[in-house]
Amino acid sequence: MEAFFNPRGIALIGASAKAGRGGYRILKNLMAGFKGGIYPVNPGNTEIEGLRCYRSVLEVPDPVDLAIVFVPAARVPAVVRECVQRGIGAAIIESGGFAETGEEGKALQAELVAIHRETGIRLWGPNCMGLVDAARKHAFSFVMEKIWAEGFITGKVSLVTQSGFLAAGFLIDLMSHASVGIAKACSIGNKVDVDECDLLEYLIDDPHTGAIGMYLESIRQGRRFVDLCRSTDKPIVVLKGGKSASGARAAMSHTASLAGNGALVGAALAQAGVVEAEDFHQMMDVCEALASYPNVAGGGGRVAVLTPSGGAGIVCADFIDRFGLCLARFSPATRVALAEVFPPWMPAANPVDVWPALELHGPDAYRKAFDALCDDPEVDAILCHFFALGFIGEDIGALAGAARAAGKPLFCWIIGTVEVVDRVRAVARAHGVPIYRELRRAVECMAAVLKRRPRSGATAHRVARDGARRDGAVACSGSSETMLPGELAGVVASANGALDEHLSKRILAACGIAVVEESVVASAEQAAARAAELGWPVVMKGLVPGQVHKTEMGLVRLGIATPEQAAGEFTRLDRKMNGAGRVLVQRQLAGELELIAGLVRDPQFGPCVMFGLGGVMAEILRDTSFALAPLGDDDALALIARLESQRLLDGFRGAPAVDRQQLAGVLVRLGALASACPRIREIDVNPLIVSAGRAIAVDASVILGD
Amino acid sequence: MEAFFNPRGIALIGASAKAGRGGYRILKNLMAGFKGGIYPVNPGNTEIEGLRCYRSVLEVPDPVDLAIVFVPAARVPAVVRECVQRGIGAAIIESGGFAETGEEGKALQAELVAIHRETGIRLWGPNCMGLVDAARKHAFSFVMEKIWAEGFITGKVSLVTQSGFLAAGFLIDLMSHASVGIAKACSIGNKVDVDECDLLEYLIDDPHTGAIGMYLESIRQGRRFVDLCRSTDKPIVVLKGGKSASGARAAMSHTASLAGNGALVGAALAQAGVVEAEDFHQMMDVCEALASYPNVAGGGGRVAVLTPSGGAGIVCADFIDRFGLCLARFSPATRVALAEVFPPWMPAANPVDVWPALELHGPDAYRKAFDALCDDPEVDAILCHFFALGFIGEDIGALAGAARAAGKPLFCWIIGTVEVVDRVRAVARAHGVPIYRELRRAVECMAAVLKRRPRSGATAHRVARDGARRDGAVACSGSSETMLPGELAGVVASANGALDEHLSKRILAACGIAVVEESVVASAEQAAARAAELGWPVVMKGLVPGQVHKTEMGLVRLGIATPEQAAGEFTRLDRKMNGAGRVLVQRQLAGELELIAGLVRDPQFGPCVMFGLGGVMAEILRDTSFALAPLGDDDALALIARLESQRLLDGFRGAPAVDRQQLAGVLVRLGALASACPRIREIDVNPLIVSAGRAIAVDASVILGD
Repeated sequence: MEAFFNPRGIALIGASAKAGRGGYRILKNLMAGFKGGIYPVNPGNTEIEGLRCYRSVLEVPDPVDLAIVFVPAARVPAVVRECVQRGIGAAIIESGGFAETGEEGKALQAELVAIHRETGIRLWGPNCMGLVDAARKHAFSFVMEKIWAEGFITGKVSLVTQSGFLAAGFLIDLMSHASVGIAKACSIGNKVDVDECDLLEYLIDDPHTGAIGMYLESIRQGRRFVDLCRSTDKPIVVLKGGKSASGARAAMSHTASLAGNGALVGAALAQAGVVEAEDFHQMMDVCEALASYPNVAGGGGRVAVLTPSGGAGIVCADFIDRFGLCLARFSPATRVALAEVFPPWMPAANPVDVWPALELHGPDAYRKAFDALCDDPEVDAILCHFFALGFIGEDIGALAGAARAAGKPLFCWIIGTVEVVDRVRAVARAHGVPIYRELRRAVECMAAVLKRRPRSGATAHRVARDGARRDGAVACSGSSETMLPGELAGVVASANGALDEHLSKRILAACGIAVVEESVVASAEQAAARAAELGWPVVMKGLVPGQVHKTEMGLVRLGIATPEQAAGEFTRLDRKMNGAGRVLVQRQLAGELELIAGLVRDPQFGPCVMFGLGGVMAEILRDTSFALAPLGDDDALALIARLESQRLLDGFRGAPAVDRQQLAGVLVRLGALASACPRIREIDVNPLIVSAGRAIAVDASVILGD
Repeated sequence: MEAFFNPRGIALIGASAKAGRGGYRILKNLMAGFKGGIYPVNPGNTEIEGLRCYRSVLEVPDPVDLAIVFVPAARVPAVVRECVQRGIGAAIIESGGFAETGEEGKALQAELVAIHRETGIRLWGPNCMGLVDAARKHAFSFVMEKIWAEGFITGKVSLVTQSGFLAAGFLIDLMSHASVGIAKACSIGNKVDVDECDLLEYLIDDPHTGAIGMYLESIRQGRRFVDLCRSTDKPIVVLKGGKSASGARAAMSHTASLAGNGALVGAALAQAGVVEAEDFHQMMDVCEALASYPNVAGGGGRVAVLTPSGGAGIVCADFIDRFGLCLARFSPATRVALAEVFPPWMPAANPVDVWPALELHGPDAYRKAFDALCDDPEVDAILCHFFALGFIGEDIGALAGAARAAGKPLFCWIIGTVEVVDRVRAVARAHGVPIYRELRRAVECMAAVLKRRPRSGATAHRVARDGARRDGAVACSGSSETMLPGELAGVVASANGALDEHLSKRILAACGIAVVEESVVASAEQAAARAAELGWPVVMKGLVPGQVHKTEMGLVRLGIATPEQAAGEFTRLDRKMNGAGRVLVQRQLAGELELIAGLVRDPQFGPCVMFGLGGVMAEILRDTSFALAPLGDDDALALIARLESQRLLDGFRGAPAVDRQQLAGVLVRLGALASACPRIREIDVNPLIVSAGRAIAVDASVILGD
């Protein structure tokens, strides 16, 4: 990737001498900051802007590590082949007209994929805006000329976007509005080769990047993406477009992207420790907050608010509650310090309404209150409100210094005149203090910082990263043969479609998952006898190969309470199945809670374990979540803890608490099974009934295929 | 109220000749726009800024309708008495130092309340910033001098805030950032007399006010507030501070406000057709959208999005889904029109990605697509994305005209350079088109406009409004005597505390609420006999006066299945209660759903009916809501429809659907009962079991008191 970001020389194929053209803008942008050799290529010119212009890339002198291609789509494959011939190892293709524009474009794009696979040349794009690197003053892009002159603010946030327009338009917006300081901005485009994972990997190791914000419509190598996120403690924020049904439909028609199952993507990102954003500016605000305070992870969420307005304090307190933070309860020392500057009638409450103290003692009172909060061990972070008609944080540098010395992240909210707001924001930025115009945004960004958890095992993951496979395959922890006895391994190796309930549960049982007691019976007498052994009442079911909707087919009978009923039911089921199925006798389990568990194979993320509430609750609450398989015990416990109604697991109305370790074991085993057996497409365990605190698979379906 | 907003002459008591002082700023503000007589009062001056200054308000000449008081708190009561003596009927007290500052201030404020009650003088404040009226250029406030010179944008949104700082600081922010056009801004302060209801009533009838935004920490006359909101179709937006537990605590210490039960306030506002806001700028944005499109109520929520960026379209689609709107499915005519300007490979999808069409045909393509959306009967509203690098809505006036002619609200989102953004925003504002910098905000404001429903019976309410009582009392629709038979009316009139379950249900039954079949029995034999009549199994309970926690006390036994068990249980309960209670035999009802209903009396909103999910679900989902009593059938049905899990009512897993009319009847009767009987403090119906589709009260508690 270094060839893209830090080449010694660049050939610009499609350079133009005409102002306003993209090929001219790219050239001007290169000349504005790039220190290496710049070699314009255009057969129609011999010189552009004082630089010698070459007829072909083949004529370009050494050293040249990167080509930037901006010629009509139809000519791009030939040009790229010339780059290969010339020995150039990397090209950014900024031309459009590929897979985003119908059949012809798709064919051209396929040709680029083929050239990359065949020759190994790294290709970035097509249909992209290239990259901007603020530290090196590189703008390998047709983004606005005079980019550096127009107020570009260098900072610690790097931006990756899948949408070309956004990369350009949004970057210009950020620059012009001086919103957020940028380290690098990368537009991915159609991803014939370089994709979000390659850029993520590079930016994780980039010393100029403090936080990474990504707008993505698809994640091509979901599993590699998650592994990369988990390999670092650097904050990563993702705005995933197309998570709703409407959004996904829009994504389908916009690019050839696969938007993925919104819930699954969300769970995967959560598991990866990624902060999810919802809007463009909001993503940048969250990134800036995390870049300002990357090492707070694992601290508490107790916030002190210093405000000149009781009303703003109240609304702020509501947001603090909403975003899962809490108002700090001050230590006695803080109460004493506040009492010293407050009028006697005023309680030392949080939010701290400083206005009366300012009226009594002037700005010193503010500083005194602020220092008390910095010193208070009960306070994890401070939010200051500034406004135009009073104390406006002139000395924000001193406040920032005191907060930093105390190890407490400081955030600000400001209202006032344009002049005051702009001035204070500039001062705050210079001191690395995030400052916002809306209270919601301020608290939302605080929550992103304070609620971030250290990535468990980031170090271990880092070791694994170098081996992270680019094809999204999963390292197998076993195989069908080692996990299953011969007969079942044979079934898994050769059968297709849905296995019947009994066979499915035998496979689960072989992996160590608790299943309900049951037997297949061959006659009415056997049915009655086996039922008596299991204990009344029993459930009887008719198992027809490939039939997963037993209840709807009238093949399930509950509450069978006598030998006569059992025998009669055998006859009925047998007749109903016309000899095509088997009859199952099963203990009727009265549990305290119905859960579901399962496994899906996602095209982007590979095998994922699903867990959630079952029964009627499931249909009302839709409280399910996912985690990438294979899972460790910790992953499984975290998956269980993501259940929104997890209080149900803690023993409700006298029921015993669910044994979470045992339940986690079920999920771990499901994940291990799927990892070991690539022919398992899906598993459904529904219901997974909790009885006396233990989770037991009562019905299940294993679906096989190639 | 007219004396406050449009006085013929104003006495400014506490006028100052010293620049920078509040008493000077108020005077300068008056002189900048007020056309009537201005009479500064200050014994230390004979002339200020060319105006004659009076020693006392008693000397001020006619006509004078309003006094603005800005003297130290201790002197205010005497000054107000002088105003009364002088025959001035209204005073705005802008001085601070009252109830917000401890005991001494509270006493001064109580004195003002007494003067108001005694003399009838209308008092606004104290501890407030007064008012600004843009149409008349009145600034009766010490808000920033040069207010009109500093870019104040006159518009249709009126603002009422309880917090003085916010009224000033926030108004200055809005002015300086040219965010939202203002009609009137009012700071309420401590509400010794004039409160949010008085201002709301005035603004509802104010022709310059198109939408009303209110920041409130308390609603003093909750019921009058709701009645006023329901009396008008003018959009009202409320940001209620202190809805969370943390926020409420902050509210308590900020003012003497009662923050109220967050859920109850939210439900009352919803019932009143108020749009709830969450943040300050967001409230103004929502207000501006509603003021731009006040008459869309009742239309559909089908949105067409026109964007130059597929990525922005996708994120926009996600928000449209999130805020309960939907993407329009275009009519065939629109598809044809789009196909004419699109390249052949491009589907006529929504969001409409116009970039390729712009590249092919230039700006005409945009207009063609826009017109097709205007003509499409499947489209209710249009959201245009503008950005700096391409079509930027130069001709926004023409777009606005076309949309208006088609009767479709138009909204815009813009990113780009500061210059372009500011220019386009100004043009959009001039054409009454709301324009936003964040997609979330744009869609949120669209949803506020499109999801507003016409206030059912606003006309009927309008008639009632003049009679709306200022003391928050509820018109009684009956009395204990007319609703209940003599014996029960006697109990309600004289008993105190919680009535026992059986007596409570007799009262409910007398109002026509279905209750479970049951009897009090006096002996073991009677228990066995009655149980046999009711049908096995039965429930038996011990009723101890005042004891509402029967289950915890071991006084409830379910599943009694034989005469022997019934007799034995009678003996056990009787012994357990030591002769102090009664034994109840009750049919054991197997229902398909557990609900709860009830009644609370709120200090701000009076009697409110509560309804929600019962049982385990209730504790997990906390899905309950409130409505002000008395309720009509429509109110009750709306209350039921506010249940988030209302799908449960529609017949789940083969259970019959709940009879919503019958259920509504239960809620209507609870409300009528409470309205008729002011001694009923609370009612708890828990559970209210749905059996065969009908709601039946299985346990209940009526709590009485004065």
